[in-house]
Amino acid sequence: MKIIAVDPFYLRIPKITTAADGTQDTLLVRIRTDEGIEGWGECDASPLVSIAVYCCPMSHGNIINIRTSLIGETLNSPDDILRLSEKVLRNGLDIQQIQHAFSGAEIALWDIIGKKFGKPIYRLLAEMSNTPNTPHPKLPYASVLFGDTPENTRQVAKELHDRGYHAAKFGWGPMGKLGEDNDIALVRAAREGMGADTQIMIDAGVVWGTDYETAFRRAEAFADYTPTWLEEPLAPDAIDAYSSLISKNPSIPIAAGEGSSTYRMAEDIIVNGGVQFVQIDAGRIGGIMPSFQVRQLAEQRGVQYVNHTFKSHLSLAASLHVFATNPDFDLLEFPAAGSELSQRIVKDPFQVDADGLVRVMDLPGLGVEVDIEAIHPYLAPVHIEIGTETVFEQSSL
Amino acid sequence: MKIIAVDPFYLRIPKITTAADGTQDTLLVRIRTDEGIEGWGECDASPLVSIAVYCCPMSHGNIINIRTSLIGETLNSPDDILRLSEKVLRNGLDIQQIQHAFSGAEIALWDIIGKKFGKPIYRLLAEMSNTPNTPHPKLPYASVLFGDTPENTRQVAKELHDRGYHAAKFGWGPMGKLGEDNDIALVRAAREGMGADTQIMIDAGVVWGTDYETAFRRAEAFADYTPTWLEEPLAPDAIDAYSSLISKNPSIPIAAGEGSSTYRMAEDIIVNGGVQFVQIDAGRIGGIMPSFQVRQLAEQRGVQYVNHTFKSHLSLAASLHVFATNPDFDLLEFPAAGSELSQRIVKDPFQVDADGLVRVMDLPGLGVEVDIEAIHPYLAPVHIEIGTETVFEQSSL
Repeated sequence: MKIIAVDPFYLRIPKITTAADGTQDTLLVRIRTDEGIEGWGECDASPLVSIAVYCCPMSHGNIINIRTSLIGETLNSPDDILRLSEKVLRNGLDIQQIQHAFSGAEIALWDIIGKKFGKPIYRLLAEMSNTPNTPHPKLPYASVLFGDTPENTRQVAKELHDRGYHAAKFGWGPMGKLGEDNDIALVRAAREGMGADTQIMIDAGVVWGTDYETAFRRAEAFADYTPTWLEEPLAPDAIDAYSSLISKNPSIPIAAGEGSSTYRMAEDIIVNGGVQFVQIDAGRIGGIMPSFQVRQLAEQRGVQYVNHTFKSHLSLAASLHVFATNPDFDLLEFPAAGSELSQRIVKDPFQVDADGLVRVMDLPGLGVEVDIEAIHPYLAPVHIEIGTETVFEQSSL
Repeated sequence: MKIIAVDPFYLRIPKITTAADGTQDTLLVRIRTDEGIEGWGECDASPLVSIAVYCCPMSHGNIINIRTSLIGETLNSPDDILRLSEKVLRNGLDIQQIQHAFSGAEIALWDIIGKKFGKPIYRLLAEMSNTPNTPHPKLPYASVLFGDTPENTRQVAKELHDRGYHAAKFGWGPMGKLGEDNDIALVRAAREGMGADTQIMIDAGVVWGTDYETAFRRAEAFADYTPTWLEEPLAPDAIDAYSSLISKNPSIPIAAGEGSSTYRMAEDIIVNGGVQFVQIDAGRIGGIMPSFQVRQLAEQRGVQYVNHTFKSHLSLAASLHVFATNPDFDLLEFPAAGSELSQRIVKDPFQVDADGLVRVMDLPGLGVEVDIEAIHPYLAPVHIEIGTETVFEQSSL
């Protein structure tokens, strides 16, 4: 097959706020081949900045856009995906945004190859790595923002519990901003709302920067409410601060890694930061293969791999293929309060089964289908001109 | 003062090639204040991708563009620059390209504060860090590409020698692509052309990826020609491979770091990679302050800080202020074969003095002035629409 088109689509809801809700807009990438097979992927990144990486004029041999690298290329096997990924990253060596932008395309390439061979992506990954190909169900944790107050948080937690969730993560919002008492009250409310027989996770949303002493004190204070982890208490690249925090042996495991835009950043936070859970967004780190490599590193280092997913179930599908075959990596971030847009992107979203678990789709490629009709109203068509030349014209959905 | 305008300008020559010549285009950033003081900075990054970071619509609280973060803000002191940098980076937490794009604006903020206080930037940095404020001259090394053949390289080297350069770096081009014999012949030609009494540096342009064994063999083979360093033999984030290479004690010091888009990347390659020279581009890492922080780390670790500059003398000025006051950091990358565009950007380029050294400009701010008339013909006006809204309209120069 030849790649004949690589098209990014910027989708958004009408009113965007500063809330830490990543589902207010998104960037989907569609790749078409001359055999009629089409693949999709989703980026968790600024849509406009990433679109620029698909169309930016060449600056020199290290700044060449993604479309130029991919269109006309041969795509017949997983090896071709690796070869094309290497080409894209080499041509984009001096484009900082290259991984954020390429993630959607890389996922789309896997979707195409899976469809071509009639195999789900997790199987292709298992074959490629000579590892077991049996998928294992995951315990989904609802991923939501803290309420504005402890009382609101308790209500959010109670609703999640009533909807049947056995695990939920609460993050961002007021955490870390109104003092220790409020922070503790938020965690207590989350625990009380969810009930004693559930897992709760706390996401501090990088609020303490490099202040690992405060992060440690909060971890100790939160321990009374037995959260599964304390996530991102520190800035994403504050590796020394993570190392200092973890060397104090906090009573709650520490999770981080969603900010990893490269494999090295994930490796750095595992090896030098020392986190116990590593959270990878396939829509930021450059797609499925670098995520899978982090999974393999996590296996070697005895760290638990978890997906970071705060987009649609298209992203969730990509994320799940990466670690479906490892039974020890048993937690799945499950977007539970996303925008209308994010809930409409796929026709066949993941369901929580009667046993409370989520299973990977045993279908070719990603196993989910984009609902073109449903997303059409959210399309924000982009047009970019430089001088008299149009460098980006919106393709039709 | 209040910031009233933040304007990026995309400049380029008519015909861009894949050569590793970073001077074929550029992105300048102009910041204006309500007191009429204006500052300039230059980014070494994809102009279009970076412009998108100045104007992209908000996605949520972690994707807010640079203009939104800066316009209307108070700017009266170096502390305001730090505060605004923190704001920009926090608002752009999930924009991978944020440092590449912000670099030009950060430099422009320093230019403004220097002009306001009538002080060169290196003095502001010395005051802020309580370090000596005496500038020291640097030995400029001409930074050029290898010729296509050893013979061409010899000619290039001979011309540089005849122009009075006592040091020159040769990089990219055929290095690493045509086998060991050709690689050695290129280095020999560089040495022969420059003569025995000069310094030469070899830039392998990331050509051996993670293959530190080949990099080591080349270092040993090149040692006969006594280069000052072997630069970027490996991929920018191949930290383990750098560590493996350096643990073999190659006969030439290893240099790297130009790909550092964040302070952490530079710290990583110094602390975990173990390089002996760290090369920082103030136009990529987020500007002058993060560069200065890498300089301070290099001082602590006994590593030599060198600028990476492959743009105009506007970038050179910014780079030089960062380490002008450290007499041990005595080498200066000096763009010597840039495009017509890059040579016209400032009115008053740096000169090599009679003693063969280059001195920082003892003038307010950066100490160089942008030649508006000269660059006007190179302006590539950018226009970006999303739906019916114009999100970027080119400002006039």
